[in-house]
Amino acid sequence: MNVTPPYLMFLGDVPDALAAKTAQGVVDWRRDWCLAQLRLPGCGADLGLDEMTVPEAVAAGAKTLVVGVVNAGGVLPEHWIDTIVTALEAGLDVASGLHVRLGSIARIAAAAEANGRKLTDLRQPDRSYATGKGHKRTGKRLLAVGTDCSVGKKYAALCLERDMQAAGFDAEFRATGQTGVLIAGRGVPLDAVVADFIAGAAEWLTPDAADDHWDVVEGQGSLFHPSFAGVTLGLLHGSQPDAFVVCHEPTRTTMRGVATPLPTIAAVIEATIAMGRLTNPDIRCVGLCVNTAKLDEEAARALLAELAEEHGLPATDPVRFGSAPVVDEIARIYGRP
Amino acid sequence: MNVTPPYLMFLGDVPDALAAKTAQGVVDWRRDWCLAQLRLPGCGADLGLDEMTVPEAVAAGAKTLVVGVVNAGGVLPEHWIDTIVTALEAGLDVASGLHVRLGSIARIAAAAEANGRKLTDLRQPDRSYATGKGHKRTGKRLLAVGTDCSVGKKYAALCLERDMQAAGFDAEFRATGQTGVLIAGRGVPLDAVVADFIAGAAEWLTPDAADDHWDVVEGQGSLFHPSFAGVTLGLLHGSQPDAFVVCHEPTRTTMRGVATPLPTIAAVIEATIAMGRLTNPDIRCVGLCVNTAKLDEEAARALLAELAEEHGLPATDPVRFGSAPVVDEIARIYGRP
Repeated sequence: MNVTPPYLMFLGDVPDALAAKTAQGVVDWRRDWCLAQLRLPGCGADLGLDEMTVPEAVAAGAKTLVVGVVNAGGVLPEHWIDTIVTALEAGLDVASGLHVRLGSIARIAAAAEANGRKLTDLRQPDRSYATGKGHKRTGKRLLAVGTDCSVGKKYAALCLERDMQAAGFDAEFRATGQTGVLIAGRGVPLDAVVADFIAGAAEWLTPDAADDHWDVVEGQGSLFHPSFAGVTLGLLHGSQPDAFVVCHEPTRTTMRGVATPLPTIAAVIEATIAMGRLTNPDIRCVGLCVNTAKLDEEAARALLAELAEEHGLPATDPVRFGSAPVVDEIARIYGRP
Repeated sequence: MNVTPPYLMFLGDVPDALAAKTAQGVVDWRRDWCLAQLRLPGCGADLGLDEMTVPEAVAAGAKTLVVGVVNAGGVLPEHWIDTIVTALEAGLDVASGLHVRLGSIARIAAAAEANGRKLTDLRQPDRSYATGKGHKRTGKRLLAVGTDCSVGKKYAALCLERDMQAAGFDAEFRATGQTGVLIAGRGVPLDAVVADFIAGAAEWLTPDAADDHWDVVEGQGSLFHPSFAGVTLGLLHGSQPDAFVVCHEPTRTTMRGVATPLPTIAAVIEATIAMGRLTNPDIRCVGLCVNTAKLDEEAARALLAELAEEHGLPATDPVRFGSAPVVDEIARIYGRP
């Protein structure tokens, strides 16, 4: 799945910033790719980008209109269709994170066909995958795993990509979810792949590479989440990480969306190594990435020090304090570039 | 997914018995549901059933024409279509285990529509599922797990259903694959479910039940298979088994289709308990089901005795010697009905 930047970010008339979370994630990490935003009257979200019409964005070099919002029910509101059709007629591709498929809407399908433009549904794989093979590939891989869903795995991986690159590593973020795909310009919506092909899709995403190349892989779910652990295990086996970080949100007590208690960090490390060994016998934990957004700075620093001591691993909040301690640990183990 | 017996087994003109493995599995376990077979000239498979034409089968009470064969490339040969259309026009539903969707063939889709008949593609879920919830349900569940794919998990579960029922247990086989669905008349083709919904589909398959009811669940893959472990873990979490059996093929050295070595039985027991505890803290192993087809009887009995001793668990080849030792262990632990 490929999405071509630069993007014109279409926000429709969603009521608030939360509904534009996907678009905001792209702006946070690929500001240079986000040429402008296009909003309809009444829109309550604002990405802080220039406002442009479709013709203005095309003239400025935009390649893809990105529908990076969620709407009640996942449907595409009738009054957004004109903008999408206009974009297709003006020569833009369109990528959407809505549940509804762009191609299922007749006017959009017809406009894409007539103008030879590409429609990308970010929630649906646009190709098939082989089943996983399990043999060791060249190159190095780092996977973000978590004590739960939505604890900051994607942001941890993006911080690590940024900080590893700054330290001279050949590191590249590999996206496994829809926001990640927009940020990377390519990837796999792993949770939407057919069950038999989870590991195979993860293998496809992280192919053979140079010995000193690092794929920094966006994690999904948690081995301890009763809804999604199958996706997590398939990703672990398919991405065969050399190194992993454990992402954690310290104020959470039950797993997202269910009543299951949160596992300990130690349990996640142990299970990830026990299961990950199947496709990479040398798998090891290289750090803890803790989302301390709900703690003040003093409490955050104290917690990180305590966790580092307890687990004998670097612990940081990569968004708040950077991921340098983890990058240093990677350099210590695997060599500095 | 529901398929209504009795069945008319359609074998087309497949070259040999191996291509009719699915149909043979149904005959092995649900002989009473298999009214007759229908073969085209040149067919090299024979289920040993009466031969009937479509009108004869309808007159005898058949409800569904079952295409229980595999064909090179998974396609539906052009010259099979007439038989399927004839069946639909005569009032039969049609169920197919081919990769190609019945409804994607215009003449078949039209005949089903015109005659109000149901087309079931056994390889494709016919409904959506919620994500898994993870909370404990009532009733009891037994899951067949394996050291590998294709080691006899389905047959072990079916033997256990039969022998538990004979011992007075309220036991019911729960199908997670296409042959299993034909044998049970219902089920979920779990490997074809979208990744996010594996556990949820397994929960749907094994709902709340009476305290003394046992769902005997067909396993899929192996926690140690690098291609399919995600499916296995989602099934383990979703089916939340109280008890499991480990199925094993003693002459195999690498996992099916890949170069990964076979795990030990002890490793499978340990990992299944470690991961299965998430949704059922009381999960335990109640026996070993060993496929000894490649050993002579003396060697088979010696191996079973050795494995029973080594693991402190009943060990049997349920197809060859019955599953009574495992049923006795279940009765010992959970009480005799």
